[in-house]
Amino acid sequence: MPASGKIFALAGGVGAARFLDGLTRIVAPERLFIVGNVGDDAEIHGLHISPDLDTVMYTLAGISHREQGWGIQGDTFHCLDALGSLGAENWFRLGDRDLATHIYRTERLRRGVSLSDVTRELADALGVRASLVPVTDQRHRTLVQTPQGLLEFQKWFVERRACDPVTGVRFAGLRTARPAAGVLEHLRTAAGVILCPSNPFISIGPILAVRGIRDALRKTAAPVAAISPIVGGRALKGPAARMMKSMGMQVSASGVAELYRDFVNVFILDTVDRFQAEKVEQLGMRAIVTGTVMTGLHEKKALAAVVLKSMGLA
Amino acid sequence: MPASGKIFALAGGVGAARFLDGLTRIVAPERLFIVGNVGDDAEIHGLHISPDLDTVMYTLAGISHREQGWGIQGDTFHCLDALGSLGAENWFRLGDRDLATHIYRTERLRRGVSLSDVTRELADALGVRASLVPVTDQRHRTLVQTPQGLLEFQKWFVERRACDPVTGVRFAGLRTARPAAGVLEHLRTAAGVILCPSNPFISIGPILAVRGIRDALRKTAAPVAAISPIVGGRALKGPAARMMKSMGMQVSASGVAELYRDFVNVFILDTVDRFQAEKVEQLGMRAIVTGTVMTGLHEKKALAAVVLKSMGLA
Repeated sequence: MPASGKIFALAGGVGAARFLDGLTRIVAPERLFIVGNVGDDAEIHGLHISPDLDTVMYTLAGISHREQGWGIQGDTFHCLDALGSLGAENWFRLGDRDLATHIYRTERLRRGVSLSDVTRELADALGVRASLVPVTDQRHRTLVQTPQGLLEFQKWFVERRACDPVTGVRFAGLRTARPAAGVLEHLRTAAGVILCPSNPFISIGPILAVRGIRDALRKTAAPVAAISPIVGGRALKGPAARMMKSMGMQVSASGVAELYRDFVNVFILDTVDRFQAEKVEQLGMRAIVTGTVMTGLHEKKALAAVVLKSMGLA
Repeated sequence: MPASGKIFALAGGVGAARFLDGLTRIVAPERLFIVGNVGDDAEIHGLHISPDLDTVMYTLAGISHREQGWGIQGDTFHCLDALGSLGAENWFRLGDRDLATHIYRTERLRRGVSLSDVTRELADALGVRASLVPVTDQRHRTLVQTPQGLLEFQKWFVERRACDPVTGVRFAGLRTARPAAGVLEHLRTAAGVILCPSNPFISIGPILAVRGIRDALRKTAAPVAAISPIVGGRALKGPAARMMKSMGMQVSASGVAELYRDFVNVFILDTVDRFQAEKVEQLGMRAIVTGTVMTGLHEKKALAAVVLKSMGLA
């Protein structure tokens, strides 16, 4: 692996942001090239919302809401409340400061600036030093198949509170979505690739689905490590466990590993799941057992250190 | 004049809103048909702002900022401050609650709803009982001629603080702008028409400029009354006096009356300008001298009563 290569990370929302928060405290943020999920992007009140990109961005900028993980710490909701009074739907919680991001992004996109460029402008303005890039500049949206039919992701996730069982995931725009500038190049020259502890279907899945990315992951010379988002048969955050179940899969760390068997070399699973290490190794991966629950800064940094070491980068 | 006809008002921003606040306290708001100026509408951060419509709407809804006259009382500016941090221009002061109006309007307009219909939705949601209608649903923007060249209205008015002397006013979109639904009909059947005390060039002017409106004012059987926005050679609010001066006109109530001589029957001027009454009458109008400075609710109602009486409506 070229020493000049970046550490390439595939990131969803809150879980990824927590992990990257630890990682950027033990390596120079400039070494990181983070590819973010846009499958859960949505237009709300006519504004382009990129929840996963923003969660990572706010976290790395040190302004994210400490408890909920998304949104901005100390934000107010005066605009959203007023929108509610006007009769607009306000199930998607957009804070006043957070809205500035969406207003800015929407205006720039309308002027023809790419999502990559807007994301860089926003991240720069907020002082984020790592590279944060949407997987694609084209429209690429996650749809979930449910007994109620095919639902837009945010409608299912936020408005319907992820109640409907998911029997499958589809992507709208897949035929035209191309990897954003730099993504395939950085994947090829990466010093290491990390799949953050994010939902395999709705966070990592939409990234892998963009043309050329999964193939580049199979071909890269760099070690590819994945951190299980499932710990003790449960998701640390979000609906991953329920989705695995309703899709007829085994809800386990090794169940996640199986989804990545064609390109992951190192699989990091929690100590409570140590009994699954053998099963993971049978998939042809090296299994690393460590504490993956990021309750605090210490745990975040410790996990990041283990991941780097597993790839020979520390 | 048909007794069933509405009281038809031509309105700019703060001055008009104050007058209409008084008027709606002495006649049923449902009797009022208010045509608002859209010449100072602007796209800011990609949002469609209609400052004059909003000022009238917020005032009649009882939520306008008491001192400044525009915006919402008690509003916060968290989003705008955050936009500033992102590097966006934030010279146009948009409060968080106020932003909800613009976000809602912009989204509805993008969905193909007319400005008239959106305005009605907003006014209804805020509990405004008078009819408030933009003069046109088409794009119709005021441009000011200055030594710096032709400037967009808000750029000149807010960003450049109306510093550049104005040598003329032009309108973009005039060829395609048609009066909004109901405007000409209500003008024809009005019980009375009132030109609120608004800037003749940038508030009343853009309304009169829309095709058919000035002509309908000349032809309506209803009495047409105008209230001078110039008192003692000064504008009570805004740049009207300076504009008259830089356009080579006499800064006086009778100077305003002259602009309307082809269709106004009754001209209301302040007691300090009583010496101009004769000059006004020489223009073929009836001059009514009264207190026009609306320092409080009492003065607003008193002025409204005088105006109604002057048209034989009280």
